[in-house]
Amino acid sequence: MSRTAKAAVYDAPNTPFVLKEYPLRPVKNDEVLVKVTMSTICRSDIHSYEGHRPNPCPGILGHEIIGTIDQLGSDIKKDMRGDTLKVGDRITWSEYFYHGECYYREVHDMPQKCHGVRKYGHDLAEEDPHFLGGFAEYCYILPGTWILKLPDELSDEEATPINCGVATMVSVTEAAEIQMGDAVVVQGLGLLGLYGCAMAKARGARLVIGVDAVESRLDVAKKFGADHTFNAAKMKPAEVTKAVRALCKPDGADAVIEVCGVPDVIPQGMEMLRTGGRYVLGGLVSPGANVTIDANMIVKKWIQMRGIHNYHPRHLIQALDFVMANRDRFPFKSIVDSKFQLKDLQEAFRKASERTVLRAAVIP
Amino acid sequence: MSRTAKAAVYDAPNTPFVLKEYPLRPVKNDEVLVKVTMSTICRSDIHSYEGHRPNPCPGILGHEIIGTIDQLGSDIKKDMRGDTLKVGDRITWSEYFYHGECYYREVHDMPQKCHGVRKYGHDLAEEDPHFLGGFAEYCYILPGTWILKLPDELSDEEATPINCGVATMVSVTEAAEIQMGDAVVVQGLGLLGLYGCAMAKARGARLVIGVDAVESRLDVAKKFGADHTFNAAKMKPAEVTKAVRALCKPDGADAVIEVCGVPDVIPQGMEMLRTGGRYVLGGLVSPGANVTIDANMIVKKWIQMRGIHNYHPRHLIQALDFVMANRDRFPFKSIVDSKFQLKDLQEAFRKASERTVLRAAVIP
Amino acid sequence: MSRTAKAAVYDAPNTPFVLKEYPLRPVKNDEVLVKVTMSTICRSDIHSYEGHRPNPCPGILGHEIIGTIDQLGSDIKKDMRGDTLKVGDRITWSEYFYHGECYYREVHDMPQKCHGVRKYGHDLAEEDPHFLGGFAEYCYILPGTWILKLPDELSDEEATPINCGVATMVSVTEAAEIQMGDAVVVQGLGLLGLYGCAMAKARGARLVIGVDAVESRLDVAKKFGADHTFNAAKMKPAEVTKAVRALCKPDGADAVIEVCGVPDVIPQGMEMLRTGGRYVLGGLVSPGANVTIDANMIVKKWIQMRGIHNYHPRHLIQALDFVMANRDRFPFKSIVDSKFQLKDLQEAFRKASERTVLRAAVIP
Amino acid sequence: MSRTAKAAVYDAPNTPFVLKEYPLRPVKNDEVLVKVTMSTICRSDIHSYEGHRPNPCPGILGHEIIGTIDQLGSDIKKDMRGDTLKVGDRITWSEYFYHGECYYREVHDMPQKCHGVRKYGHDLAEEDPHFLGGFAEYCYILPGTWILKLPDELSDEEATPINCGVATMVSVTEAAEIQMGDAVVVQGLGLLGLYGCAMAKARGARLVIGVDAVESRLDVAKKFGADHTFNAAKMKPAEVTKAVRALCKPDGADAVIEVCGVPDVIPQGMEMLRTGGRYVLGGLVSPGANVTIDANMIVKKWIQMRGIHNYHPRHLIQALDFVMANRDRFPFKSIVDSKFQLKDLQEAFRKASERTVLRAAVIP
Repeated sequence: MSRTAKAAVYDAPNTPFVLKEYPLRPVKNDEVLVKVTMSTICRSDIHSYEGHRPNPCPGILGHEIIGTIDQLGSDIKKDMRGDTLKVGDRITWSEYFYHGECYYREVHDMPQKCHGVRKYGHDLAEEDPHFLGGFAEYCYILPGTWILKLPDELSDEEATPINCGVATMVSVTEAAEIQMGDAVVVQGLGLLGLYGCAMAKARGARLVIGVDAVESRLDVAKKFGADHTFNAAKMKPAEVTKAVRALCKPDGADAVIEVCGVPDVIPQGMEMLRTGGRYVLGGLVSPGANVTIDANMIVKKWIQMRGIHNYHPRHLIQALDFVMANRDRFPFKSIVDSKFQLKDLQEAFRKASERTVLRAAVIP
Repeated sequence: MSRTAKAAVYDAPNTPFVLKEYPLRPVKNDEVLVKVTMSTICRSDIHSYEGHRPNPCPGILGHEIIGTIDQLGSDIKKDMRGDTLKVGDRITWSEYFYHGECYYREVHDMPQKCHGVRKYGHDLAEEDPHFLGGFAEYCYILPGTWILKLPDELSDEEATPINCGVATMVSVTEAAEIQMGDAVVVQGLGLLGLYGCAMAKARGARLVIGVDAVESRLDVAKKFGADHTFNAAKMKPAEVTKAVRALCKPDGADAVIEVCGVPDVIPQGMEMLRTGGRYVLGGLVSPGANVTIDANMIVKKWIQMRGIHNYHPRHLIQALDFVMANRDRFPFKSIVDSKFQLKDLQEAFRKASERTVLRAAVIP
Repeated sequence: MSRTAKAAVYDAPNTPFVLKEYPLRPVKNDEVLVKVTMSTICRSDIHSYEGHRPNPCPGILGHEIIGTIDQLGSDIKKDMRGDTLKVGDRITWSEYFYHGECYYREVHDMPQKCHGVRKYGHDLAEEDPHFLGGFAEYCYILPGTWILKLPDELSDEEATPINCGVATMVSVTEAAEIQMGDAVVVQGLGLLGLYGCAMAKARGARLVIGVDAVESRLDVAKKFGADHTFNAAKMKPAEVTKAVRALCKPDGADAVIEVCGVPDVIPQGMEMLRTGGRYVLGGLVSPGANVTIDANMIVKKWIQMRGIHNYHPRHLIQALDFVMANRDRFPFKSIVDSKFQLKDLQEAFRKASERTVLRAAVIP
Repeated sequence: MSRTAKAAVYDAPNTPFVLKEYPLRPVKNDEVLVKVTMSTICRSDIHSYEGHRPNPCPGILGHEIIGTIDQLGSDIKKDMRGDTLKVGDRITWSEYFYHGECYYREVHDMPQKCHGVRKYGHDLAEEDPHFLGGFAEYCYILPGTWILKLPDELSDEEATPINCGVATMVSVTEAAEIQMGDAVVVQGLGLLGLYGCAMAKARGARLVIGVDAVESRLDVAKKFGADHTFNAAKMKPAEVTKAVRALCKPDGADAVIEVCGVPDVIPQGMEMLRTGGRYVLGGLVSPGANVTIDANMIVKKWIQMRGIHNYHPRHLIQALDFVMANRDRFPFKSIVDSKFQLKDLQEAFRKASERTVLRAAVIP
């Protein structure tokens, strides 16, 4: 077989994406080759492209990917839920993979924290198997990846963010231990925050409050389950806190979820909580997120603060089930609000970077 | 009845304790009058005496108290575990009390966090019933207090700290979710830290590491279950962290417990933890415990940080049971290492303040 | 004040209800007098009326009650969530009450399990304060009851079942530890089962399967969140089990909830579960519910079986919040499908007993 | 290499063990060859030998095994805790193994419940690699097994039961959610029960009560942490229940653990529990363990019943750490109370079967 396929490759941070051809080789027994049907641009793709993350170059970015099975290794019979897999099936898969022994997975059930875990969209394009990122016509799925079949009724737009933003928010909202009737605050109403609002509602919250500094996001959040929103750019922090606490009777929010990536919101989140409240940090994924907190407030208010990074394989299944169960309730389809061809990846990145689109999709 | 009894009263912070007589009145139906057999000086008594806490004056300090029942209100038949109470029984009781409706108790099972909760050793001596602190011949127990009968075999020295330090550490170590075989670090080896080391062991930890800046405490800690100790005054923080991590194979401590009252140890505690580790803050009980942390480490390492203040009624029972079950294993008796008469309270406070004694007891 | 009011009283099991007048006395400081606006007939009222439960006679039945405050004791300022109470407010309240010390409440946070707990609709009508049941014009609320203000937008029909069936099902579904995406089976589609289906969905279940032997209930259940239903009267047990397991891919249900009151369904429920599944028993409230199980299946399948009876005060708040948050999603209003005057209580009981109505309401 | 080694093989249930020689082949990259230093006879070995379990024949029994590494596959660098492995190291390993994808492991973190999981001591001796059981000079460790290095100070007698009875009881006692100060009943004082008593104590129980029908076991249990014991052969069930409840003030045991293998004890265990108590079934590993229970008691008493079978990899580490941390407190060494050569396996089985020894060890 001497097939080749195209990929959008960048040679160094901030240099133009170029379409290149690489050979496609037959899959090994424990691999899958996927024909990509859609990839979306995640904020971390932009960080990588701008050189803020140590991605090897030349590289193919993109880890929010779905596609149809082109070749299926002979050892792979079923997806992670036990459904039979065959050529032609449309699938999603975990954005990370790890093969081999791992203390964190086997002892602590944290496969996402194995030392040496790898992520799609983070490899050299020049090396075999070349295709390990979303912005290409094909993608290989390597051993140690969790694969999940997609139901036909789900559109590509609804399905593509599942293996990154949606699954991460399943992990984050699970850690928030949301009980039926809880009052939940979401700090940051980007993609993660929108799914966060919707999931808080889907887990039984009575009241979801969103906070962001971009006015347009506040309106969108209301469609995703936020009962109230506050514009942090137009109110003083103390006013926002006071307004939130007034809504969360009798004594503050049961849970606060940080997905804005700004460490300075932490003291405010602590103020919003009731005694015994839970605080989950999910957005502070960049090093050096220094913030000064009053640790006495943690003690006096019995605050439980928890960091969540990435997700467990079960969260991928839950992410799919969440989207399937709530697609009539929340307009997930509208999140992917612009589509580009592979050759126009540069423009897609520009718009995603400017935030003039919510989620840019590439259809190779 | 025109009985009177003596109390050691201070008129203002840092003024001498004076023995005063106040009338003893018959108990109401829901009260108990106790003849104090021993009270110990808690660090917070010293803070109050020095004016760092807003205690009303003239006042009777002391909340770590035990005694024998002198009068029993007719409505009080049993202790909190269901054992029958009668005049002459030796008892301990919760250091705090609250009577009436309370959202936090009834909805969230946090009676220690009721708005308006009161504490023994924190009232005006001039007002009825006068005797509500430990440094006196008698003490009234008011409604909303949990009472617990003491077994005869337990010495006063072992029993007196139960209702404060021991019960608080039951609460703290419970929050640390110590599993069998865990590696646990205790930051601060004062009274709380010593009980903390012993409880970590009694909950199944395989490895307990104590850190303090006072050399003599390190030796004492080894008798209370610490397998290793480090002197934070003699090593650089990074060295301590490295040494701790080397002991906690393969990747750091499962739990860290802060009971030293110094917020600056928090970043170090975070470094010591493995991914997914638990951090319980128990000693930062004074306002303004500001500290700068890297919130990204909380996210990346999936740290669970939790503040604990005071204790639940069940922890008082557990505290007694812990001391009873482990008194042959750990030298609890040695913690109360000096005794004073009521008239010598001044000297007792001086020694406790200088830390030349571990726990000073007053026997009225 | 020499006011009187009417109540529907029965002198002995199965004897006619008679309207009687009893005096209304002023409330004590810790009591509330409520003018009843609606009471519904619970299955346990019928059991009591038929003599299967040891209710004292002559008695006033009814514990699913709402009403407006007629007199408010001077000590009662707020409801359990902290909202201010005043005369005229429409309220619900816990069906049970207990006043005084209680080991189970204070140590284990199980106030519903206090020895000596009392329930509305279970007292002698001849004794002060006479009005302690729902089928009367007034009802006294005694100390140790949790009171909760009702929002104006909630209809009486939606509000009345909250303090019994809805709150109990919050307790039951909480114990089922439903995770987002779970497959949940509900055995029994009476009032409890309908709320159970809806709550499973509201807690994030992807798949809710209802089983009952009454065909008409299966259709109703579909409006309350059941995705699939099976008629246990028309299929063999093994067929039902097989069909349920086929729906719950890959290996059975994550949780099964029993609210049918028939012990024989337990082995079937165990078969339906996946390894590690949860089984909550909520309907077996009558003594002598003997059933033979294969305990080896519990061991081999790691089944977690749990009994739930009554509810915690927090569940009352959650019940109200659940109904408020989901009243557009599920037709709660339709559950109360017939209304009667107090003088027609006999007929109401007859219809409720015959199950020709789903929930019969009495409007005094 | 044309080495051979000996194994004690049985050709059919209840036929004599015969020493046979099989070839030893070089290990593959992901295998280990161990020179067996000790194997102990588990009750399930006897069941297999007597034909009550479907073991293939001719076979080599034995899954409680330790030994030293003779050959180490090139892919195996570290044990499950991250310690480096080398030839000569003394190790234990999980009694079960599974290689490949598995829904239960990857989604539900239950690797012990993978479909197709295999167990040492359960294979045909005639097939490669021949040596997969304990009663032989060598044993191969196949991929999907968890390996754990043994500390030098631990004797073979203490170490051998770790990978079966001890680890299983870590799993069982974890499921019992033993809190500090709990009262715990252990039904059955065989090997599992003895470790169960000791672990309940090591997890902080204040009171451990053992029940068995063999008098001699009661005395042994007292050395392993049981505070009280009752002989079920000499007292009526109701008397035992009454006596146990009298010890577990105020209202029954917090947890009951079944490790006797007799389903009829379940109703008694339920009676012993307090409201809200936990019941863990660990001994009912044979099919057809039918028992009639009153399901109403589960509901009324809020009983949580849970079956536990086998153990998680983390429990193997905890089992080792438990034995290491408590070997001065409990006489683990005395459990292996008789030793045999490989050629005398028949006699060892006879004595183990007659229960004239507690744990028979084979030293090849």
